[in-house]
Order: sequence, then C-alpha cells, then structure tokens
Amino acid sequence: MSFSPLISQLIDSFRCLPGVGPKSAQRMVFHLLERDRDGAKLLANKILETIELVGNCSMCRTFSENEHCSICSNTKRDEMELCIVESPIDVVAIENSTDYNGLYFVLLGHLSPLDGIMPNDIGLDILNERITNSNINEIILATNSTVEGEATAHYISEMFTDNNLKITRIAHGVPVGGELEFVDGGTISHAFYGRREI
Amino acid sequence: MSFSPLISQLIDSFRCLPGVGPKSAQRMVFHLLERDRDGAKLLANKILETIELVGNCSMCRTFSENEHCSICSNTKRDEMELCIVESPIDVVAIENSTDYNGLYFVLLGHLSPLDGIMPNDIGLDILNERITNSNINEIILATNSTVEGEATAHYISEMFTDNNLKITRIAHGVPVGGELEFVDGGTISHAFYGRREI
Repeated sequence: MSFSPLISQLIDSFRCLPGVGPKSAQRMVFHLLERDRDGAKLLANKILETIELVGNCSMCRTFSENEHCSICSNTKRDEMELCIVESPIDVVAIENSTDYNGLYFVLLGHLSPLDGIMPNDIGLDILNERITNSNINEIILATNSTVEGEATAHYISEMFTDNNLKITRIAHGVPVGGELEFVDGGTISHAFYGRREI
Repeated sequence: MSFSPLISQLIDSFRCLPGVGPKSAQRMVFHLLERDRDGAKLLANKILETIELVGNCSMCRTFSENEHCSICSNTKRDEMELCIVESPIDVVAIENSTDYNGLYFVLLGHLSPLDGIMPNDIGLDILNERITNSNINEIILATNSTVEGEATAHYISEMFTDNNLKITRIAHGVPVGGELEFVDGGTISHAFYGRREI
C-alpha cells in the first residue's frame, strides 16, 4: 500500500533537502500533518517569500535582500582587504569566529572544468574588474581545502600575480583540539611544512 | 554577525521539522538558496496544497484527500476485523508488512491524562459508536509498546469487554534478527512468558 497521491508527492518534495532520505521525509510529512499544520504553513510561506526576495549582493555576491549586503554597505569595514570564499555560509563562519574587518567576495562555487564550471561561472570576471578598479591591497584566499577549492585558489592567485597585490591563503594544519593520532597524513604534512617559530 | 532577517526567519521556520536543529536548518536554507530554488518552490507549494486538501477519513480517521480513505472505501476488505493504531503511519507500516485484510481505526494519539488527552480526544466515542453499529467481531490492539500505548490498549479492551468481541493485542517479544544479548530485560520477559509451542 502506498500513501494518498498528495502525501506521496509531498514526501518526494521533501527529498530536495540535504540529508533527507525517504524515511525522514515520511516522518517530516506525518509530523507536520498530525501535529504542526500552522508551522507547516508558516514554513511554506517563508520559503516562497525568501526565494522571491533574497538575491545576491551586487558587490560581493553573498545573499541579500538589498542591492548591497550589510557588510558591503558598512562604511567602517576596511576596503583594502578582500577575502574570497566559496559560499555565503563561509562568510558567516568567518564573521563569527574571527575579527576580520575587510570585505568579501563570494564565488558561489568552485572551478570544476569537468562539470563545465569555468572561471566566469564563479564570477572571476567580476572579481577581476572589482580588483582593478579599487584600492584593495590584500586578497585572502579562503576557499575550501578540497581539490577543487585548492585549484580555485591557485587559479585566482595566478590571475593577480601582476597586480602588485599581497595574496595570502588561510593556513592548513592540525585542527585546534585535534590529536595527532587521529589526523590524516595530508593534514599532518601541511602542518609540518607550515610550522612557525614560537 | 547574523544572517539577513528573511534568512534568519526561514532558518527558524525549518526548526518545526522533526530532527532538524539549528545547524541542519541553516544547511537546508543555504542549500535551497544556492542550488535548488525550483525544488524549494515546489516543496512550499506542495506543503500548502497538502495541508489545505488532506483531512481525515470520516470512517477510520487516517489521512485522506477524500471523505473515505482508499482502505475504507475498498469493498474487498474484511469488515469483521478492526485494527486500532495510534498514527496514520502505523497503517502504512502494517499494510506493507502483513497480509491483514480488515479495516483500521486511527486514534491520532494515545491516552495521556497528565497532558489532558482524554478518551474523547483520541476518538474513543466515535470508535464506540462504530463498533456498536457494525458487525465487527475482532478488534486488534496495535498501539505502540510504550507506557501510554499499553495504557490506551488496556483502556480500550476494558471498554469492550461486554460487547462479545474477540479482543487481541499484537505480540511482544524479541525482534526478528535480534540477538538475546542485546535485547532489554522487559522485552525478554515478555518473549519468555508469551512463548508458544512449535
């Protein structure tokens, strides 16, 4: 026996969420129908409102309801530094754990020629224009430490070698609180060669 | 730094789903905004459509878009047997794993006087009327094996002792494939006293 058509379709629709398989989708649907129809209605309306109104900041490409996001429109931020990240969620992570006071540029992805994601698909043409027409003097490459993230960081650093810019990459090493025994070899190797005098 | 107001509100709204905490809600919102706006729109519209159109079957109280659900309106089902479960999801579980061909009654909850859930809140008045006015000769109590589920099963069995009905409770015991070593004492005790000749 299967569910009624509408319920089956709703269970399928929930599968678009990350980490939600058939069992959890089913559990979510029955929970909403049985116990929280008001919450479900609110959720649905918020989703529609958000995808309607939230676009990208025209400066840094992070998510924003306005033309410029709250960081780009903040005149107290240091315009000389630009941190390049893959996703809007990385902006929040950096803001919450560092005292970085410069600006950001969000790639909304990473280079991946095999999947057809070329430099202009991650906004490198916009980035180039922005860096040429501004007084940025340091770019911080904070892409993920994956193969694609490293390749993207390398590509961007090559793009701007002639621009007389300081180009830095966030440090790789043993996570704080991590025990060497449980850290993978690649990370230990990075931590070892990137060692600093104390 | 926090998110833009709309994004924060959407993250909060996702918390109404079971098993979704702040981190997964955040991940869901960013996933939808970055990669699947069409899926998000479809999900939102399906939620609204489903909570608008799906009500309860007037016979068995399971979820249904129609006055009677597909089981209650199926004339080939055995009208002499009635299986009583707590939730619509239990109907699906029983349909998918047994060849039971009778009808159902869904309590949509369980007795819990401390939480103010009294017999009529789980439809026992409707159940009583249904059993009195039909030719049901067996009721199968398939409520959960929790304290509340057992209490509910006990209460219903007491209600109908005078009705000349066969009243049965689903068996409790060691789960199929389970090793005795890892089964809790209460279950082993049930399995032991409920032993059957082979």
